[in-house]
Amino acid sequence: MAVLNSHLLDTGTPPIPEAMAWLSNYRDTLGPVINLSQAVPGDPPPQIFLDQLSQAAGQPEATRYGGILGDDDLRAAYAHQMSKTYGAELAGGNMAITSGCNQAFFVSIMALAKAGEAVMVPSPWYFNHKMTLDMLGIETVPLPLRAENGFCPDVEVARALMTNKVRAIVLVTPNNPTGAVYSADLLQRFLVLCQETGTALIVDETYRDFLPEQMHPHDLFQKEGWNETLISLYSFSKSYAIPGHRLGAIAAGTRFIDEVSKVLDCIQICPARAAQMVLPWAFENLEYWKAQTATMIQRRIRAFQAAMREAALWQIDQIGAYFAYVRHPFDGVPSSKVAEALATHCGVLTLPGNYFGPMQDDYLRVAFANVDDGLLSGLGRRFAALPEVAGVPAQKMKLGA
Amino acid sequence: MAVLNSHLLDTGTPPIPEAMAWLSNYRDTLGPVINLSQAVPGDPPPQIFLDQLSQAAGQPEATRYGGILGDDDLRAAYAHQMSKTYGAELAGGNMAITSGCNQAFFVSIMALAKAGEAVMVPSPWYFNHKMTLDMLGIETVPLPLRAENGFCPDVEVARALMTNKVRAIVLVTPNNPTGAVYSADLLQRFLVLCQETGTALIVDETYRDFLPEQMHPHDLFQKEGWNETLISLYSFSKSYAIPGHRLGAIAAGTRFIDEVSKVLDCIQICPARAAQMVLPWAFENLEYWKAQTATMIQRRIRAFQAAMREAALWQIDQIGAYFAYVRHPFDGVPSSKVAEALATHCGVLTLPGNYFGPMQDDYLRVAFANVDDGLLSGLGRRFAALPEVAGVPAQKMKLGA
Repeated sequence: MAVLNSHLLDTGTPPIPEAMAWLSNYRDTLGPVINLSQAVPGDPPPQIFLDQLSQAAGQPEATRYGGILGDDDLRAAYAHQMSKTYGAELAGGNMAITSGCNQAFFVSIMALAKAGEAVMVPSPWYFNHKMTLDMLGIETVPLPLRAENGFCPDVEVARALMTNKVRAIVLVTPNNPTGAVYSADLLQRFLVLCQETGTALIVDETYRDFLPEQMHPHDLFQKEGWNETLISLYSFSKSYAIPGHRLGAIAAGTRFIDEVSKVLDCIQICPARAAQMVLPWAFENLEYWKAQTATMIQRRIRAFQAAMREAALWQIDQIGAYFAYVRHPFDGVPSSKVAEALATHCGVLTLPGNYFGPMQDDYLRVAFANVDDGLLSGLGRRFAALPEVAGVPAQKMKLGA
Repeated sequence: MAVLNSHLLDTGTPPIPEAMAWLSNYRDTLGPVINLSQAVPGDPPPQIFLDQLSQAAGQPEATRYGGILGDDDLRAAYAHQMSKTYGAELAGGNMAITSGCNQAFFVSIMALAKAGEAVMVPSPWYFNHKMTLDMLGIETVPLPLRAENGFCPDVEVARALMTNKVRAIVLVTPNNPTGAVYSADLLQRFLVLCQETGTALIVDETYRDFLPEQMHPHDLFQKEGWNETLISLYSFSKSYAIPGHRLGAIAAGTRFIDEVSKVLDCIQICPARAAQMVLPWAFENLEYWKAQTATMIQRRIRAFQAAMREAALWQIDQIGAYFAYVRHPFDGVPSSKVAEALATHCGVLTLPGNYFGPMQDDYLRVAFANVDDGLLSGLGRRFAALPEVAGVPAQKMKLGA
């Protein structure tokens, strides 16, 4: 029997399939299943976009290899879009197109750290980030987040946890799993810490386009020397509702992008072509649609908050672009037991907090953004329909209890 | 300045862009450029296939996430096709669909070895394999190949080179860069060695479908316990002329596939959907086209051999499915100098042997399979038009000189 990589054997399995399996025991007693487990766009993109994708995929050009870092047209067009969004001057050479934002993270980590080194990640974290670090033999330094601080990381705590093994700090904003949106000022302070310590700052902005329209994500690209420290990750999958076409991006200094090209060459040679050929068109023509989606998600935040008033024992401790982080009312019951009970008895699938790091057992992650308003309005009654889990009755929980 | 991964800094850059740049100095003096550098399909796939791809990419389903290991329909259909090809019993659970065969290799290595461990690779090797091992901090144990043995690996030499750090042996057949096709018997002996030593055997069969029609690749899938040792890699990109859609595959035991799913989840969540949705149709309807391509490539082997008779000082030391490994006539001149001179003076782009490992400076790799017959026929005169490189005149070289 061939021996397998011990780092990989010690890495957790992708958790979403396990959670999906719970639903098979639901008997439709409270109505149709409401799937709040995955951050997937609820609606397909507009027909005109599907038509463009179809046309591109029918061309011989889409069957050919493209550039390792993505099509130059797309890199230039995305640089132009980012420059507008951030009030910065970014060029195509600052961009690497990836097969989604998980890949953007994986290759960025490959470029920054090797086995035996470390990366600092606020806890709770996005589980694929932890899996990536584990399988590469890179130590995770948890930066604990607190509900009292709105699950925003504290730069002085981060400074105290720095060691000479830490190669990067990873921030996700808007956050997965908590929904917290970090302020431009907070991000700025993390950039300064990273510049002072020669550490890379990875900012995963997968959910950036779902911020309220008037909200500017940050000013980091305007700071002197940003290109030696900052690595910004993005997902076309989420913003344009095309995860099946697998496209994300890295924006960083050109020296970093050059190193990333070695990894991308070995991981895939180039991203799939068809959607790359259409995205520059989408940047010009689908801004109205992205804005509509952002507005809809803001409306769903309010709808979710309103619906949860009917589940008074459950507490929304944080909510943002795509997710709510909800404290359940079953004292001491593991979050996976609560999530499983909610799925099997109430037909509502959420992800347990323990998927996202240690000491998260009081929480469930609720991806409400892809659920239509009609289903959302009945959600509170579904949560309230769970009187007990594992013999523990629902009761009002105290913050930090 | 953030610190970068020293393993990656020590990894070579993707070589094809460097070689491509040489062509910019060619002045068209001997006719149009003949690009023999890359293993890319020369012709687009049939129109009916393009139409199917277009139709799939226009469907909302193609915009959605798919399974981590690929669409179940495709996994089952490919298992059926492989079972026929190898006279074996393979199921969908033995298959992982990847974004091309480089990715199939990368994730297989991730599943088998960690930094500080080792993988044995015949030399000359495929450069992306070496880059992958280097960036992951995995030691490469070279298994030297000899022209006198037709560049086929010797299992007893491999046995002598085994250490307790070696986690896998990698064989590429038909080979890149030499074109050598390993016999079923040779592959069988490597499987036995790997089974005896608890080592994985990775067989990269990217160019399998370009074997002569009557030739059966191997019987490894029929051997007892194959699933604990054998990992077979494949490329839909090459066989169906769709590299831009990025699809390859791993066939292996289900325990291995389960581990690979963790890596694929972090690297990309799922492969791009549109072409996955069409490939089962292609298996049913494009066998005639694949067979035509294989026949055409066999014809081009003969055409290349005939053309090179006009370049008598150049020696085809090996030739096979997609590549010829050609000894140049410039004694002691580095292969990159020869390849550059051939590009700039004769408009013929090949890759220098030194891209493929140590002690390969007598060789150029010629990817003749994608060049149409008219251009191939004039190729010998182009090679012969190079009388000297770096002051060294062309002269007849001895084998092993």
